[in-house]
Order: sequence, then structure tokens, then C-alpha cells
Amino acid sequence: MLIVMSSSATTEQIAAVRDRIRDLGFTPNEIPGAVRVAIGVTGNKSALDPALFNRLAGVQEAVAVSKPYKLVSREVKPDDTVIELQGTAIGGGSLTVMAGPCSVESEEQTLTTAHHVRRHGATILRGGAFKPRTSPYDFQGLREEGLRLLARAREETGMPVITEVKDTETLELVAKYADILQIGARNMQNFSLLEAVGKLGKPVMLKRGLSSTVKEWLMAAEYIVARGNYQVILCERGIRTFETMTRNTLDLGIVPLLRQITHLPVVVDPSHGTGVATAVTPMTRAAVAAGVDGVMVEVHPDPAKALSDGPQALTFDMFEQLMQQVERVRQAVGQPRAS
Amino acid sequence: MLIVMSSSATTEQIAAVRDRIRDLGFTPNEIPGAVRVAIGVTGNKSALDPALFNRLAGVQEAVAVSKPYKLVSREVKPDDTVIELQGTAIGGGSLTVMAGPCSVESEEQTLTTAHHVRRHGATILRGGAFKPRTSPYDFQGLREEGLRLLARAREETGMPVITEVKDTETLELVAKYADILQIGARNMQNFSLLEAVGKLGKPVMLKRGLSSTVKEWLMAAEYIVARGNYQVILCERGIRTFETMTRNTLDLGIVPLLRQITHLPVVVDPSHGTGVATAVTPMTRAAVAAGVDGVMVEVHPDPAKALSDGPQALTFDMFEQLMQQVERVRQAVGQPRAS
Amino acid sequence: MLIVMSSSATTEQIAAVRDRIRDLGFTPNEIPGAVRVAIGVTGNKSALDPALFNRLAGVQEAVAVSKPYKLVSREVKPDDTVIELQGTAIGGGSLTVMAGPCSVESEEQTLTTAHHVRRHGATILRGGAFKPRTSPYDFQGLREEGLRLLARAREETGMPVITEVKDTETLELVAKYADILQIGARNMQNFSLLEAVGKLGKPVMLKRGLSSTVKEWLMAAEYIVARGNYQVILCERGIRTFETMTRNTLDLGIVPLLRQITHLPVVVDPSHGTGVATAVTPMTRAAVAAGVDGVMVEVHPDPAKALSDGPQALTFDMFEQLMQQVERVRQAVGQPRAS
Amino acid sequence: MLIVMSSSATTEQIAAVRDRIRDLGFTPNEIPGAVRVAIGVTGNKSALDPALFNRLAGVQEAVAVSKPYKLVSREVKPDDTVIELQGTAIGGGSLTVMAGPCSVESEEQTLTTAHHVRRHGATILRGGAFKPRTSPYDFQGLREEGLRLLARAREETGMPVITEVKDTETLELVAKYADILQIGARNMQNFSLLEAVGKLGKPVMLKRGLSSTVKEWLMAAEYIVARGNYQVILCERGIRTFETMTRNTLDLGIVPLLRQITHLPVVVDPSHGTGVATAVTPMTRAAVAAGVDGVMVEVHPDPAKALSDGPQALTFDMFEQLMQQVERVRQAVGQPRAS
Repeated sequence: MLIVMSSSATTEQIAAVRDRIRDLGFTPNEIPGAVRVAIGVTGNKSALDPALFNRLAGVQEAVAVSKPYKLVSREVKPDDTVIELQGTAIGGGSLTVMAGPCSVESEEQTLTTAHHVRRHGATILRGGAFKPRTSPYDFQGLREEGLRLLARAREETGMPVITEVKDTETLELVAKYADILQIGARNMQNFSLLEAVGKLGKPVMLKRGLSSTVKEWLMAAEYIVARGNYQVILCERGIRTFETMTRNTLDLGIVPLLRQITHLPVVVDPSHGTGVATAVTPMTRAAVAAGVDGVMVEVHPDPAKALSDGPQALTFDMFEQLMQQVERVRQAVGQPRAS
Repeated sequence: MLIVMSSSATTEQIAAVRDRIRDLGFTPNEIPGAVRVAIGVTGNKSALDPALFNRLAGVQEAVAVSKPYKLVSREVKPDDTVIELQGTAIGGGSLTVMAGPCSVESEEQTLTTAHHVRRHGATILRGGAFKPRTSPYDFQGLREEGLRLLARAREETGMPVITEVKDTETLELVAKYADILQIGARNMQNFSLLEAVGKLGKPVMLKRGLSSTVKEWLMAAEYIVARGNYQVILCERGIRTFETMTRNTLDLGIVPLLRQITHLPVVVDPSHGTGVATAVTPMTRAAVAAGVDGVMVEVHPDPAKALSDGPQALTFDMFEQLMQQVERVRQAVGQPRAS
Repeated sequence: MLIVMSSSATTEQIAAVRDRIRDLGFTPNEIPGAVRVAIGVTGNKSALDPALFNRLAGVQEAVAVSKPYKLVSREVKPDDTVIELQGTAIGGGSLTVMAGPCSVESEEQTLTTAHHVRRHGATILRGGAFKPRTSPYDFQGLREEGLRLLARAREETGMPVITEVKDTETLELVAKYADILQIGARNMQNFSLLEAVGKLGKPVMLKRGLSSTVKEWLMAAEYIVARGNYQVILCERGIRTFETMTRNTLDLGIVPLLRQITHLPVVVDPSHGTGVATAVTPMTRAAVAAGVDGVMVEVHPDPAKALSDGPQALTFDMFEQLMQQVERVRQAVGQPRAS
Repeated sequence: MLIVMSSSATTEQIAAVRDRIRDLGFTPNEIPGAVRVAIGVTGNKSALDPALFNRLAGVQEAVAVSKPYKLVSREVKPDDTVIELQGTAIGGGSLTVMAGPCSVESEEQTLTTAHHVRRHGATILRGGAFKPRTSPYDFQGLREEGLRLLARAREETGMPVITEVKDTETLELVAKYADILQIGARNMQNFSLLEAVGKLGKPVMLKRGLSSTVKEWLMAAEYIVARGNYQVILCERGIRTFETMTRNTLDLGIVPLLRQITHLPVVVDPSHGTGVATAVTPMTRAAVAAGVDGVMVEVHPDPAKALSDGPQALTFDMFEQLMQQVERVRQAVGQPRAS
């Protein structure tokens, strides 16, 4: 913490800030300047809240200089976190492909999609059973029936299943069927849900909020890890900006920075990140080239008839081509494939 | 719904779109053009999802022309919704002032603040007992003890109490003490919580999400109203933009448009909307001048020592001055004071 | 400038940073900490660029602690800048109303509008002769003919004229007719134009860029003032956000902060700030209540036939009502009217 | 254009809208509906401004259904535009690498950098001689001396030179030395400059504005092309969002959509797009994987001493590694290298 005093701060005001720092148990370090005085705070173990100082008389600004996250940072845990699942793993350098329908709609749709994506190299099956929707009048998912269909597809294909959990009420039920619990963008700061999945100990994929900074996202992951669950995957899925040509703006530029800051695996979702089917394959290639641990894409046997997010779903043919292209980029960047 | 065909769409593709519209039970209305054909859809009772059409061959774009919200709109209910509470009311043209501390911290802090704001014209007491915080290491509120202190302040001052409910687990507990349940910005699309407060039937104040469009916000309110609870207050509290000088960007420009679109009362929170104490009074005046049903401001006996959001809290003196100024602007715009 | 070293920085790296600071002629002030060292830089007269330090080995972050603007700041010039014009003044506490058509379209339109706004209390006439337009196919203004019509309106009404200058080529021509030169949002960082109007010495109104921070805006004003022209007015006209219900998001929350930081007059443009005629009057009231030096609104005898920005133009009746309401709010906040 | 009438529109209001459409020389096509009437407009050759209709009585909304750009669109010119330069070409499927310093600082810096980037595969030399800077107190470039140094580097290496032109005053001078004129992000809507480079007929690279939509960007390109200059390159360089970890948010997701919409070559600038040197190589790989026509990166012999944008400059070693990795990704996506 650095406290910058106003150029008109009095000697008494500066002394009062020093006293306040000492009262809190820390050490003030005065830096005299030509125009103004600054006071560095040392002796604190975790990040301090600027609000502790910036209302004191004579203070111009209190600037935080430490990072607020701890357990999710590489400073605390330098080696990659790897999520082990039956027969596969996420993180640690290999590339994982998660694929499947946005919503589970029927047995046929789910099983044919699962077999198709498995055949072409996906290792995790995605599918929504509980769907949080902007409108109360939209299709909300098949609920438990959807979970049963996902479990059925897992039996047939051997792929672990990732599905969204939208509230604590249905957490136990969803956890009974799912291998990875997905927390959606709108729930990224649903702290009660974060704590609940933290206590549960199952792998969690935490999507970035629509307008969440990387710092807030890492703090949300910190909520889960602080409850003892280190099996957290971060998923970038596009942020909200002024641009409307794509549904969201896929923020790939943070991927290399995340790899420096955190040990958690990073997955990218180009389906929600663009919202436009023809952009999904190029952006999946781009994500792999940027160096992610995994990608997640939506596939549907007949996108024009999908009950949710049809415009961004890949057809079976498009998915097959995507996997061929991803395979070439994966080799170009020298990344092993998740087995 | 208007379906704009590509300039290269074939006669067969146009026919297929017409068939699809008829399959759904609606009527296609072809609009021939110099460059391209467009097809208007009629016969639908509620808004259609563009996704139903924009993956069909030859379709360039499907444009929604109806609004997706119904029960919250003035088209459906033209007269203002008024929330009646013991001794006061919100909505219907009068000005309500809600004030109190960000967090309930102690009995003395709560009671002195409650008496002070009451004395100077506030009619609703705000105070946080369950605090959703970005960091798991920050102060999370006094929980039930905080609720008891708010109830104590209500007894002493006669003011109804508004306090945040952050999850369904604590809803019953919070509802036992609160007169108005506040849904925070980060929970605006926590649909399970929206449905739960919809069923409960208590007055709810729904804060706008950090990056939520007005449309999404109204759809979130629609979730509550669709469960039978019409006692919903909308609270604008600033949106997230690129500007960092203020904590958020207070979006007053939507206030006059909200009054045309919806019958629900609109409240503005300049404390979170600016995050800077010296900006709160001018922006409260501005909100009243823009024509709101109420304002909500944070007040603390000693902001420099507040456990949360100190930089934006008003001192007792600042609140007193604010109320004098608000009073003059209220009269200037000819709005009655909430009794 | 505060340089925060990485927790793994070596003694040699810290010494190298100290040497670099001394090489630049400044003084390093080391602040030892539990986890990391920070080094304060003192002895510099103006703000330093963090880029000078943040690529040095072992540096985690260089944080600027001084503000980069000088001449526009109240620290340097504490008293309000007042722009004197023939018969009126802008700044210094009184309220100025600028009004007129978006574009000058014809003699009749210009003169009737000028007389109408004058009669109801405007003191400055606005009108566009050179129009920067997003599309090359849109109406680009009447050019010099438009300037002549504005001059004619000035003769008839006695009102000084503000009009936009869009490039250095036409600056001399526009300056021959205009009393105040307006720099549009898209030209806020057209540094050549800023320098040119700085040298010219005529009053300038600088609109905030669509996505410009307050800091960038003040730096743009600094370009003008640094050339010797202190007659600069700042005009907030809405910023670009994700919200599409209004054309822009009018950022009134910065107004009280601008008044603390800078001595330059602050004007608000609710016409561009909302883009919706029915929102202009409420937001003009709000701007006055927030404490601006002036407002600028667009008025047209027949908005449905306007050649530009019709949706946001006020009719003559709407303007008359606006002025009555503004007058009441102006009195409520105790601000004198510009004569 | 589709005009949606309000549900309460009268027969007379609907007739008046039809008349207005006919007055403008177009044809109204009424679409009756259960709740409201809509009127399609046909017969227009170019896009209509919604403002022509949405202030008419009874009109709820006027929705533009045609795109406003023409000459830059693939509908008008289906085949790729290829910019031919001495010895190389941009566009048409091959990958161009532009590299060099942010600012030209000295002869040695310029020549060593030019030789280094040439040796490792760059085909175009970038370098700034006239630098638009946010602060009037920052280094503004070596001006003509910088242009001479670039010309010298071109002679020695054979690489065509791209450099920024910041105003019409210096356009002639810059054009004397440059092979490609770069228009910076802050000048994207400097329409006078766009028209001037349109008339000049030299190749132009148009950077996307900080908060410009793709539509506005294409309209800016349309300004140049409408003056007869089809040699326009689009350069995505990151947009402004709420995220501050990167300097800008690189918007790769629009690349595949641009390729569908426009025939102009698309280049990506990961240096400005991230602002962080360690992110530049991963994002350059990502851009190539996404399918761009070229990339532009900043290289400096000693980034810690660069006079501008040091934090994002690559060292010589980093550039060499970047080129090796880019080469592999280029092959993976099957794109030829620009000769």
C-alpha cells in the first residue's frame, strides 16, 4: 500500500496517517518529494483495502501494490494444477476438447452427438440440463431427465460429463451425475454457490463473468480454493463490450497472462465467445495457438432446430473439420493431446 | 419478427423460410425489394427468438421487432405500481429517501445512523447484514446479529428496513426481519433467487447488474413478477465502463425511458453509482431532477473507519446538507415527498 | 512513481533499478517489505512514464502517483476560468444555455430557431455547418453557406455562435464566423487540430471522446492550453457503453469530480448524451442539478424532417418547457443565470 | 428499412407514414399483425437513415435492414483486394509480417532493427516518425529526420515502409517517403484525412478506433474507397473495455466475420492489442491461426530504453522465436508466406 498525500497536506495530517498505520499494526515509510509526500505501508501479510486510508484528511490517493489473490497464484503454488478424471486429465500442458450440445433435448440428440464428438477426438462431453435463461419464458432445460441422458451418454462413450449447476438447491442432484460442475458466467460472483462447490470437492469449471475483470475472476476462484477444493478450471467465454457483431468479445489476450499468474487450467469457449457458428472454428484454432489447456464447443445435429443457442452450434460436419484443423495447430505449437 | 434474406437467396430458400414460418403456426408476409427479399412474420402472440430462423439457408438476418417483456411493461399495466409499507409508500410520484450504513457494524453505529437519517427526512433504513464481497478475506457482515440490529433500529425509529438477501439459503431468515428484500447487482441474473423472492411475495428491490442492459434487467424483474409478486422496485446503481475515475458510471439517462416502458418504481443509488463521497450529493440532486421515485445513499458516523465502502459513505453533516439540497430540487420538479 | 519489485527480485536487480533512477537524475527511496521491496522515485518535476521502469529485470509494476496534466489543473490555477464573450460569459458559477439546430439547413430554419431559443433564455446559438458523418453518403453540412446563416442569426439575435470545426484546412474559415470553436468527440485526440486552435486563441469547446477517460480528455485540453489558449470549455456528451437503449451513456457522475480537478468550465450535452428527445429535458434538469456551467441542446422546427439527428431534437414547444423547468432547478441549486 | 408502428397507432398515423415513404420516392409494404402494423420500405438504392421515420407520430421504431457500406463489401466486389508493393503483396491469402520499432529513435536503432526483422522473415518495415501522443509533454517523434531514416533502411533492406500520417498538413511529406500510409486508431474518424488519403491513391492501413464498431470502421474505409482508392488494409489493434490487465482487448473474433463481409485485407497488431511483451508472441500465433492476411509487431534493440511503448516491444531474440512459431502455425493453417 502506498499512500499519496495531497500537495497541500499539513504536517499534522501526515502525522495522523502515520499514526493510523501504526494503530493497524503496520509500519509507515515516508518518502519525501518535491511536491508531495508519499507513505509506504509495510508489515502487512495480505493486501490492504485502500478504503482504510483514502478518507483520512490530506490523503490524495491510496494505491494497492500487492495482489489480493493468494491460493490461486503461481507465487504460492508454482506448478500447474492438473484435474484427474477417469481416463483423462485437464491441465498440465495437454489439450482437452470438450464438446456437445448447448442443451440436452432428447435421447437421440444427446447420444448421436456424444458418439460423434467422441469419434472425432473430444474427451469430455458437455451438455446443459439446467439452463439459466434471460427470459422466464424460454426453454429452461430437461432438468433431471437431462442429467440421466448425459449419464447414459457417458456409459456408452466413456467420456466424463461437464454440466452446469445453477443454484445450491440443485447442487447435490447435479453433482450426483456430473464429473465436472460448470458455474456459468452469470453466477461467477454467486458466492454462496462458490462456497458450496468449494466444500463439495468435485472438479469445477468457473466461467468468467460477462464484465468481470481477471482480478475478480481469480478472486471468485479463490472462494472455491479457500474452501479446500483446488480442482478449479477457468473458462474464458467472451466479455461484454460495445461491439454487437459478435455476441461477446472473446478475450484471448488474457490467456498468456493467466498462465503466468495462476496454476489453474485455462479453457476457452469460442461458441459463446463469438455466438456465430462460422467464427467458432477459426477462434478455436486461435485459442489453441494462444496456448490454452482446453476448448469447449457446442455441437448439434440440426442447429436450425436447437432449443437454445442455435446460431453458434456447429453441425457434425463442421465439428469434424474443426478437429482436423485443431489437430494441426496443436502439433504446430507442440502441445500433447489429452488422452 | 422480420427475416431479411441474403441478396443471393434462391427462390427455393425463400419458399423454405415461408414453410418454416407456417410450420410454426404463423403467417409469412413477403416484402419484395430491389436487392433482396424480406419476410415479415405475423400471427405470433409473444416475441419470437431470432435463432428460430437465422440458421436457415439464405437468411441474412432475423430481426426481433417486439419486446420480450410483458408483465413489467406499461403496455400491459399502464398505471404506476406503488409499494405500500407500514406508514410509507414507494412509487406513484412521490420521492422516497433510503439511507443508512453500507454494513451494519455495531449497535451504536446502526442506531445513531438510523436516528440521524430519520431526523433529516429518510423514510426507509438501509443496512447490510449479509455482504457479498469480491474477496473471501473481506468482512462478510454480522449476519443474523446484523438483522437483529436493523429490527431494533426499526422499532426505535419506525422506519421500514431494506437489506440484501444474497442466497436462497438465508432468504427465509432475512425475510423474517426485512421489509424490503434487496437483490444485489451480482445476483441480478441469479434466476433461482429471483423465482424464490417471486414466490415469497415480499417487496423486492432489484439492482441492475454491472453490465446488464435495460432489457435484461426488465427480464430479470419479469422473473419475479411472473411468479405473482408485483412489488418490485428497480434500482440503478451504476454500470461498468472503461472510466475508472468513478467506481461505476451512473446511468441516469435511462431513467426517463424506464418511466415510459415500465410501471415499476425506479430508485437510484448514487453511492455505488459514483463510489466517491464528494460526488454523492450532486448526483443525488441530479437523480431527483431526472425524475426518480427514490434515492438510496450510504451514511456512516465515521467513514474513515467503515468496514466496507468507506470512500463513498456520507458523514452525518454531509447527509444533512444533502437532504436540504434534495428538498429544494424536489420542490423545483414539483414532486411530493413520501410521507 | 512507485516501483514495486517482484517477490523474487535479486539484490542486484534492485540495485540496477536504483542506478537507473539516479541516471535519470532522480532519487530512489527504498521501502523494504515482508514480501517484496518497493522503490519510490522523488526529485522529478513532472509525471514519469511507467514505461521507463517496467521492463527492467525484477520489476513487477511501476505505478504513476502524480497526475500527468498540469496547466488545466486547479492545483496550478485554483480559480475558475471564465470565457468572456460579447454580452455574456461561460464559467464562474452561472448557467449558460446553448441551443440551436444540429445542422444549419436553411435560412428560415436557422433564423426561426435562433429567435425561438433566444426568446426563451438561450444565450449562445449552436448550429453545424461542417458535419463529420459516419457515412460518406450522409449530409455533410452547408459549409460556408451555413456559417453565413449563423452569422446572420447572430446579427439578428445578438447571440454569440458556436459551431464545429472539423479540420485544420477549414479552421481559418470557420474561425472567421464562429465565436466559439467546437471540437467534436471524434476529433478529441486530433492533436494537430488541438495545437492549431491552441495557437489561434479563440474560445474552444472540447467534446469528450466516445471512449475517452477523463484523464485523456484533460490531456487533450492540456494540448490547447499548452499553446497559450486558456479559453477552453469541456463538454460531456455521453460515452460508449454496452447499453443501446440510449445512443450514448451520459456520464454526469464525473461532473462534480471535474470541478475539483480543473478550473475549466464544464458543459453537458444531453441531446447527444441520450439521443432520445423525450430523455433530453429530464437529463438537462439533471445536469443543472449536478452543477454544470452550461448545457447544450438541439432544437429543430420540425424534427421529423431534420437532415441529421432528428430523433434527439426538441420541438419549439419542448424547448420552451425545458427552459421553464431548467429555470426552477437552477434556482433550487442557487446558481445565477448567465446574462 | 422496416417501420414498426406502435400498438396504439391510428389508421391516420399509418397512412401518414405510407405517404412519407412515397414522398421520398419509395414504396410502402404494409404487414398487418395481431398487435401492431409494420411497414417495409422498398425501392431505395442505398441504406436509409432510421431518423427519417422514427419521429413520425405512431412510429415505435424504424429498423435498418440493409448494410450502409457498399464499395468495401464482398457483395459488391467478391474477390480479395491485393495490395501490390515492390517485391511483395498484402492480401489474397498469403501471410505478411510487418515489424520494426514503435518510434524511429536513431539511425543505429532503425537500421539494426530493420536488418534483424528482415533476416527473420518480415517483409514490411514499420516505424513511427510522427507520433500522436496522449500527452503534449511526451516524445512526438523525429519527424522528417525519422522518415529519412526509414527510407535509408528501405534502401539497405529492400523492405517497403509503413509509417503513420497524423494530419493532412504532413500528408504530402509523409507520402514522399512511405510505401503504406498508416492511419492511427485516434484518427479513424478524421474524415478530412480519410478523404485526403482517398484522393492520393497510395496504399493505406486503417487502424480500428478504440471504441469503433466494425460497421463504423468499414464506413471509415468506405470514405477512402469512395474517393477512388481501393488500396486499403484494415488493422485490428485492440478495443477499449473495462479490463485493465491488457492495454486493450484484442478482438480476434471479428476476423472471420470481416473476411465474409469485406474484400479488404485484414492485419492484426498484437503489440498494441495487448500492450504486454510476453503476450505478443502467443497472440501473434493466435492471429495467424484465426486466418489474418498479416500481423504487425513492435521490435526494439533495448525495450527498457524505448522512447515509446517499451512495455510491449519484443527484443531481437523474442522476435526470432516469434517468427519460428508463426512459421509453424502458418503451415498448420495452410497459408502461403508473402514473398
